[in-house]
Amino acid sequence: MVVSAHPTATMQISNLGEQGLLKLIAPYCLPNTIGDDGAIVHPPPDCELVVTTDVLVDGVHFSDRTTTAFDVGWRAVAANLSDLAAMGATPLGITVGLSLPPTLPVVWLEGLYRGMQACLDRYGTGIIGGDLTRSSVATVAITALGSVRADRIIARANAKVDDAIVVTGYHGDSHGGLQLLLDANAIAEPTAERQALIDAHQRPLPRLDVLPILDRLSASASQEFAIGGMDSSDGLADAIVQICQASGVGAVLNRSSLPISPSLTRIFPDTALDSALYGGEDFELVLCMPREIGLELVEKIGGGAAIIGKIVRSSDILLIDDLTNNSPIHLVGVGDSLPLGTASLKENRHSGFQHF
Amino acid sequence: MVVSAHPTATMQISNLGEQGLLKLIAPYCLPNTIGDDGAIVHPPPDCELVVTTDVLVDGVHFSDRTTTAFDVGWRAVAANLSDLAAMGATPLGITVGLSLPPTLPVVWLEGLYRGMQACLDRYGTGIIGGDLTRSSVATVAITALGSVRADRIIARANAKVDDAIVVTGYHGDSHGGLQLLLDANAIAEPTAERQALIDAHQRPLPRLDVLPILDRLSASASQEFAIGGMDSSDGLADAIVQICQASGVGAVLNRSSLPISPSLTRIFPDTALDSALYGGEDFELVLCMPREIGLELVEKIGGGAAIIGKIVRSSDILLIDDLTNNSPIHLVGVGDSLPLGTASLKENRHSGFQHF
Repeated sequence: MVVSAHPTATMQISNLGEQGLLKLIAPYCLPNTIGDDGAIVHPPPDCELVVTTDVLVDGVHFSDRTTTAFDVGWRAVAANLSDLAAMGATPLGITVGLSLPPTLPVVWLEGLYRGMQACLDRYGTGIIGGDLTRSSVATVAITALGSVRADRIIARANAKVDDAIVVTGYHGDSHGGLQLLLDANAIAEPTAERQALIDAHQRPLPRLDVLPILDRLSASASQEFAIGGMDSSDGLADAIVQICQASGVGAVLNRSSLPISPSLTRIFPDTALDSALYGGEDFELVLCMPREIGLELVEKIGGGAAIIGKIVRSSDILLIDDLTNNSPIHLVGVGDSLPLGTASLKENRHSGFQHF
Repeated sequence: MVVSAHPTATMQISNLGEQGLLKLIAPYCLPNTIGDDGAIVHPPPDCELVVTTDVLVDGVHFSDRTTTAFDVGWRAVAANLSDLAAMGATPLGITVGLSLPPTLPVVWLEGLYRGMQACLDRYGTGIIGGDLTRSSVATVAITALGSVRADRIIARANAKVDDAIVVTGYHGDSHGGLQLLLDANAIAEPTAERQALIDAHQRPLPRLDVLPILDRLSASASQEFAIGGMDSSDGLADAIVQICQASGVGAVLNRSSLPISPSLTRIFPDTALDSALYGGEDFELVLCMPREIGLELVEKIGGGAAIIGKIVRSSDILLIDDLTNNSPIHLVGVGDSLPLGTASLKENRHSGFQHF
């Protein structure tokens, strides 16, 4: 990567001027995409196009206290790529609409682009366009484009009674990492185990890697099946609730099957379950499909992937506590009030109004 | 259009709550596009996809002084559709990323969506997704998607020596309208002529209507030709400069051929030329093509459409003053210093850092 300017730590973007800013940003964009009024993208033949938009605002979605510029860039891209993965779509590229205070340090802007590019590189895609303007508050508006074969679209409304509910990895680690970041003592010299939770929060990995596995399972299945699902960016419980409401079904989950990492359980024994259900920002996929396909998928993904329950003909979404034999609890979504005992999580939710 | 809430004039969006906001916005989105993590778009077969992003910030790109919420919505959409037209692309839909102060009046948000929808309706397209979050400053980030046949892409780098330079309509009216809006006396009881300039500023019309005409001319032409061009959102002079730089050519324009409306000349006799060259925000197209095609195009478009000059083998971009026999002047782009005598325009340019 070539960075055309060598800003000092104190240089502000207003010092760089228009041309300097463009020179700084150009190396981070895919070749032949900038210079005209719009960027040209070549969608593969016979595919549907998927488009998703996320806006991140300084002081609402990120702050200097818990997030470096690199991590803001990484997470902004990761959230958008996760939305594509949630639809079954492979990325074609992103556009970046930035509004920034003129006093923003140039090194922050560079860090942001480095973080975005690092995440995009990992998934073989890049920046294809954008806009840059001044504002009193830093705002990052990303739109991601992807493509998916019409018969491979993952949708919330596709869940069917008796489907297995598969999650692609551990839940709650991101929320655990955030708690550690907000505790200066905990992060002074983090152990490897603590650092793993912090990494889960700062550098989430959208599960685009799951799509080719799903493709192969679909191709070799004895009969066609549609996958109901979404990502768990607003929490595992919310994902289940959204899928059930969109599909007109209920769900039963087993407490013992929830994928909670050993690290989270050791560091936060009292709150690990709440973090897993309601913490959010794990960016895993929650997928509903025939049980035999689900078993194969979990085996191929490994890690924390698990079948956590099944879809039932009901309007209830119940967590059966097969570990303690407590009564089943009803799960709630982001739009609902949180259950008692989870008040510590409230700060972390409703960070925006809501996606729509 | 059904609006599900009936807010009073004093209601703020924080009073409405998440679900209320979603209900308010849903009627403005195309059916079957919201509810999943991303929206599905069906691009036509064998087309390239064009994507363009614009960010508008309160206090930078619009203010209550000159722009109602309806007009902010209209102009935000118009600017993006104009970028599609500038590439030869027909719109498939837009995403809207909003960040808004919780104290914003609900009627402002409704006005914004009504303005966006009015402009989208006129061009047969709509909102397919978005994001909504809180912020201390209202920011509207729109991404527009369009499609174009590969052999019909309009690009800045396509201009060739001897091409005629065609503009699709009058220039400077938008800047004249802005001057009137900033002058309380002028807009107390605007004449029809003054109102026409104000309309040009508040409700610009992107020239998507020119694309099917170009298609027919291309199909019936004796030989294939590529069109060099862009829109004139940053000013007519800047468009010519950008096209010439991208194509490695020069241009000679004739003062008498510049399309300046009789109204602008009558109301602003001293500054009409500066407004036409450097005022910007006219959202017309500047297109370079063989002269015989250009003549047909101008005849079919009518209005202020004109051939204003031609592309030459040079690095100079000259305006020949065939009206007064003054010396030719060199035109400059947005990145350059303005020529002497145009200082009044400076405020109006550089409203952002620059698009990239």
